[in-house]
This record gives sequence, structure tokens and C-alpha cells, in this order.
Amino acid sequence: MKKINVGLVGFGNVGSGVVKILRQRKTFLREKIGLEINIQKIYDKDITSKRDVDVDRSLLTRDSKKILNDPQIDIVVELIGGIHPAKEYIIEALKKGKNIVTANKALLAQNGKELFALAQDRQKNIYFEAAVGAGIPIIKSLREGLVANKFYNILGIVNGTSNFILSQMSNNNFTFKAALAQAQLKGFAEKDPSLDIEGIDSAHKLILLVYLCFGRLVNFSDIFIEGISQISLADINYAKELGFEIKLLTIAKKEKEELEVRVHPTLIPRGHLLSSVTGIFNAIYVSSDLAGNLLFYGPGAGQLSAASAVVSDLVDLTQDIRAGLFRPTLNIRVDESIKRLRRIDDIESRYYIRFMAVDKPGVLAKISGILAQSGISIASVTQKERSKAHVVPIVMIIHEAKEKNLRQALEAIDRLAAIKQKSVAIRMEEV
Amino acid sequence: MKKINVGLVGFGNVGSGVVKILRQRKTFLREKIGLEINIQKIYDKDITSKRDVDVDRSLLTRDSKKILNDPQIDIVVELIGGIHPAKEYIIEALKKGKNIVTANKALLAQNGKELFALAQDRQKNIYFEAAVGAGIPIIKSLREGLVANKFYNILGIVNGTSNFILSQMSNNNFTFKAALAQAQLKGFAEKDPSLDIEGIDSAHKLILLVYLCFGRLVNFSDIFIEGISQISLADINYAKELGFEIKLLTIAKKEKEELEVRVHPTLIPRGHLLSSVTGIFNAIYVSSDLAGNLLFYGPGAGQLSAASAVVSDLVDLTQDIRAGLFRPTLNIRVDESIKRLRRIDDIESRYYIRFMAVDKPGVLAKISGILAQSGISIASVTQKERSKAHVVPIVMIIHEAKEKNLRQALEAIDRLAAIKQKSVAIRMEEV
Repeated sequence: MKKINVGLVGFGNVGSGVVKILRQRKTFLREKIGLEINIQKIYDKDITSKRDVDVDRSLLTRDSKKILNDPQIDIVVELIGGIHPAKEYIIEALKKGKNIVTANKALLAQNGKELFALAQDRQKNIYFEAAVGAGIPIIKSLREGLVANKFYNILGIVNGTSNFILSQMSNNNFTFKAALAQAQLKGFAEKDPSLDIEGIDSAHKLILLVYLCFGRLVNFSDIFIEGISQISLADINYAKELGFEIKLLTIAKKEKEELEVRVHPTLIPRGHLLSSVTGIFNAIYVSSDLAGNLLFYGPGAGQLSAASAVVSDLVDLTQDIRAGLFRPTLNIRVDESIKRLRRIDDIESRYYIRFMAVDKPGVLAKISGILAQSGISIASVTQKERSKAHVVPIVMIIHEAKEKNLRQALEAIDRLAAIKQKSVAIRMEEV
Repeated sequence: MKKINVGLVGFGNVGSGVVKILRQRKTFLREKIGLEINIQKIYDKDITSKRDVDVDRSLLTRDSKKILNDPQIDIVVELIGGIHPAKEYIIEALKKGKNIVTANKALLAQNGKELFALAQDRQKNIYFEAAVGAGIPIIKSLREGLVANKFYNILGIVNGTSNFILSQMSNNNFTFKAALAQAQLKGFAEKDPSLDIEGIDSAHKLILLVYLCFGRLVNFSDIFIEGISQISLADINYAKELGFEIKLLTIAKKEKEELEVRVHPTLIPRGHLLSSVTGIFNAIYVSSDLAGNLLFYGPGAGQLSAASAVVSDLVDLTQDIRAGLFRPTLNIRVDESIKRLRRIDDIESRYYIRFMAVDKPGVLAKISGILAQSGISIASVTQKERSKAHVVPIVMIIHEAKEKNLRQALEAIDRLAAIKQKSVAIRMEEV
């Protein structure tokens, strides 16, 4: 029976999971795919620490060249993460004629153009199912299952850490700080959690989703990003009273000739599926022109979940290799109808707004007056407490407005003597 | 450029959709897949009625042999539905060395063993993405995306018609009859709606899901089936008050060495994603051992949605054909740990029960007594109205009980003089 040899670069949590699955499901997979996936070599800087899977010492190496230069190795699985030396390893592996499986969203988001071009040039494949939504087969679904579709909307909850924090705040009345501490305790958040809570990881994943749906690798700097660290428990609770949950959404929207790409906290109406996605779960809601509105949901993290995706990529590659099949840059086709990215100033959205105002007559009239001058119309307004001469929250939902107009109005409002804190504005999605 | 020739058998709604997509996306698909999908011939009994897509008359034929015997045709797309002559056409096409795409769940559910065996024997593929969940790539996800996983649970809302009816009852207070009439008016239900509302279509789809997850083609007669025609608006509303929605679920559960396969109305707690699936939408909730709990959601019907799935199968087949690749019976592997199917008598479930009892002292004591004798424990009980000496509903939720025990208890209770109607029992899912 034909054997496909794999070199594993990175023997951490997900790497160990891949080894576990390939070992435990050896016969299972062989019977399914008709050939054997053999781990030929495992590279890591650290080859002495105990893993939760035992491997023969002879498989382990601290020398990446033992993998990259081994002509018997057909596929390199890159799971070390980070940009360097992951990038150099992948480039070297492609040049040596190997196919690639990676879970490295940061690398592909940042250096995708170069890497995909090299793969194309060498007629090799880079598969990356584990890079978005862990075990959820979202990449395969967009690329193959929906191959005939054009897309116009992606709304994703793609960062499990942020979603866990927001869920703890909403369901258990935790403050942001307490929820973050709990996420760290449970191992869902890093010591420095900024990559997750500031929306950076979500933006990396958005770049990959946009690439698959619209054929463009947008630059990280083109994405408008707002994290969740400014979200207060008060806003979560006020939003809830109004029938909404606040989620960190990655959004790509095609409208006429423009594409919006943004990551920010967003109010979603209860009843929409995305509002029920809690904890570390991820979900990607995709609007396509033929298959309609689809949702893909599952755990967004976890050793075996991510490893499940890596193994599915491996299986696909074994079939490609056996068939001598090269799938050019994942069948990506540029959506030519998109002429430019829309700047955040120009997007239109409904907004949830909280003003902190002194509780005295005439304040609301002033606020409404300024909004009206900017052409912004109010859908609902509630004063949350009564407290003579004290600062109280006024919560407002406004109808569709241009971001730039809203910002200008808020600046003017924040200059009022009666306004005692910077006003909070959170975008909403109708869906 | 290489051309793959397709013979379309059945030029109805979905067939026209396939023609539309292949025509409108001709360049789009060619650039993605590197070859051309050409519709060589279209068979239908009726080739004169106007379709919503124009085709050259020379493409149309009333003679199926023009497709089955044409050596230039690589793939036969069967979209006539029903058992005969669809079955004969597929057999003939396989024997003539053609690959198959079909949306025919009834046929595959009933004759899958024979058809898949023949395909295996001839080293040809039968693809059927459109047979479950229309454009939702559920088949591909189970088969390829989750290739390394073992499954233990499937909960599906796979019949759009039933789900539309139940949603109308729940959201708009329609009676079953009125909701069905509306579904018929909108074209979501047939004149004879029994295939949909009696759970038969759901059972066909369950057979295919079970095949993909557990490697077994169970018999239709092995599935316990209850439709939705007995669901009353009252029960929907009582369930809602208790925090549940009633959905027609297709269920497959592996427990120890047994597999449960059943289709019936089920109470699902609000907050679970499946409870938010409304209208003609479908969703399949799958529990796997590596990738965890996943949900796939999308429109369960519609011309272009189903055609989108057919075209994705066609695209996959073009790659298989180009590569000379045969994927043996869709990489199906029998789950040997399953020794037998569990009979409905032996399943355990929580239940919602509604008794119609004369409102007088001692009735509840009698009911509870009988339940207690059968070892059934009550979680909650509410008498819904007060009306001296009149019949009033008593709604009860009971803890996990064996179906057989519950049925025996209900029979005994229904013999009480104070019970004036057959009691209603609806199963619940925790999820």
C-alpha cells in the first residue's frame, strides 16, 4: 500500500493532537482513504519535554533540515505558529516540492500573497482548514461545497477567547476583568491576551475568509479593528434589556463595488443564531447568492478539534498527491466586481449609544438636537436611572447612519457641559 | 481545455437551476476548476413546457438512451425523483461507466445498498450532496471535513415543510391546518403533504446521514417515525411557556453497542441553536469525538440552493475524473462497535405530557400514583386552566424514563374515568 510521508514541524498542543489521531485512527483512515499516512519526522526546538502522546525518540529532531531536506517527505505540517521561522520553513518546503498544511492564520494573513504565489509556481498546495474555526469545515465548505456561489456577506464569531469573555459577562454578570481572569485560569486566554481581545486574531481569520469568498488578500491595515476590552457589563446588560447580545464580529460586506472589512463588538438581536453562540464556540454566517444564508458552528479551539482539521487537510492532500492533482491556489478567483474597500467613515449602521449625562431638564433635547442636525434619527431612547443632579446613563438606539456623521455628532455631544463621560457607541447588525 | 460532458436526466425545477448555474457561471467555474462542464443532453418526459431557462431544442430528448448510451457523457445527473425509472437509469448509467450525481434521497434510502455496491464494482462514484439540506455542504463536511472523526449523535431538522408549519404555529399562532394550508399556498408543501409532514422524507434523509456517520444503511422499517400532524397549537404554546420549541427532529444516537434511529416531534430548550431554526431552514447538529458538537444550517429547499449542491458534486467529479480517482463508496467505513439497533420501547427520554382530565380533587394523585408505580418521576406539573367539573389540560414534564414504561403508564392513566382524551406525550432532547 502506498504510504504518504509527513514531516511535522511543531510538536506542541495541536501537533501532539495530530500525532494522537494519526496513531489511534491508523487503520480507520487507511480503510477510508486507501493509503497510509506516516509520520516520518517531528521537529521541535524542545524535544525533551513530556507530551501527552508518546513517540519514538528516533522520530524527533531539533534540526528542521531533517524534514525540509528529506526527499521522502511529501507533506510538511507547520504548527509552530508565529511568522518566523514558520515562513522560512514553508518557503523551503515548497521549494523542495512538498505540499503544506498549516494552522497559521497570522502568517497566511500577513504573507499569504507571497506564499500562495510560490505554491502556485511550484504547483503545490497550501491547505489551512485549522486556521479558522478549528474543526469546523468552513474552509472546505466555502472553497468546495459552495464552489459555484458568489458571496456578499460574512459575519463571524471566530475568536473563542473573546466570545467566552462576552458570554461570561452576559450570562453570569462578570465584569470584563473578572471574565478575562477566568478565561486565563481556564487556559482560554494567554497571559498577554491582546491578540485575542483586541480583535487581531479575528482580523487574521477575516483575511482568510475574505480571500476564500472574494478572492482578495486584503491587508491587515485595511481592516477596521475594535476589540472588546472597552465593553462594560453595563452595556451588555442594557443591550440585553433591549433584546440584543453583544458579540465580537468579523464582518465582510459587499455592497455595490465596495467591500467592507471590519472587526468590532456588535449588537445582534436575540433570536438570530449568532446570538446563541456562547463560550469558546465559533460560528460563521455566510450569505451566498445560490445557497442562501448558511451558518457553520462548532468549538473554536481545542487540541483535537484543530487536529481534526489538520488531518482532514492531510487526507485531502494524500488524494491530491496520489492523483497528481494540483488545486491552483485553492480555486481562488478574484471577484472583479469589487473595485475598492469602503472606509470605516463611509459605512452605514444602526448604533447602540450610551451617554452619561447629568439628570436635569433639557439634556435630552440638546442631544437629540445635535443628532437631528447630523441627519441622525432616533429609534428608541431610555434613561436608565433617575438621580437628581447626578450622572445617569441614557441609552439610545439610532436608525441607519453614516459612521462619519455619527462620530461628528458624538464629538459635539461630548462637548456639552451636561455630558460627563465619553459616549459609548456600538454598531448593530440587523441580519 | 478538457471538457466534461454531463447528461441531465430530469428537467424540472432543480434541473433548470443546474442549467442556469452552469450557464451563468461558465467562465467563473472554468477559471476555478480548469476545465469546462458541458451539458451534452437533457432528458425529460416533457420537453415542450416552458422552463425558466432557455435551452437549445437540440439538447432536449424524450429518449433516456440518448444519454445513457452516449459514450461521450461522463456524468449523469439524475433529478427526476421517485424510485422508478430513476433507479433503472442510474443502474444503466453506472454499467455504462458513468459517474452519478443525484438528489434522490428516497431512492438512495431504499436502494442504496444495491446502487452503492454497483458503483463500487464499476469503480464509479455516486455523489448526493443535494439529497440532504439542499445547498448546505453537510455530506461533504461529514465525509471529508470530519474524515478522522467518529460520531455519536445526530440531531437534524431536515424537512423544510414541517419546520415551516411548526414555525408558523409557534410564531404566528396558526393551527396545524392553517399552517399547512399556508405552506401549500407558498409552494412549500405538496397537495398530498404526507411525505413531508408524516416524517417520511426526514427518515430518508436520516438513512443517508446515518450511512455517512456510522457506515450502515439502515432499513426504512427500522426507523421509528412519528410526524407532526398530531401536534396541536395548544401543545406548542404550553411547551413555549415552559421554555421549549417543538421541532420535527431526525435523531441518531449511538449508546454503547446500540444505535437509535428515530424521527419525531421533539421539545428543544430555547437557547439551543436548533430551537432558533425557523421557516424552511434546515440544520444538522452533529456530535463527533474530535471536532466536538457542530451545527450546519441553511435553507432546506429552493431551486438554486439544491442546484448549488448538484454543481458542487459535478465539480468534485470533474476533479475525480481528471485524476482517475475513485473514492470507494464515499470513504464509508462501518462502525463495528454498533451491534444492533435499539428498539423504540427501550429508548430513554424526558417527556412532555398533556393529560385532559376532569377538574376535581384526587385526579392528580391518581395520575402521579400510576406514574410512580412505573418508576417514572415528575419534574414539573401545571394545571393550565380551572373549570369545575370540566375537562382541563394538565401539563407535565417527566424525568428520563423508558419509553415502554411510559406507554404502559399512559395506557393505565387513559383508562381512568377522569381522563377524557388520549394523553399526549412528546419526547424531549436535552442537547
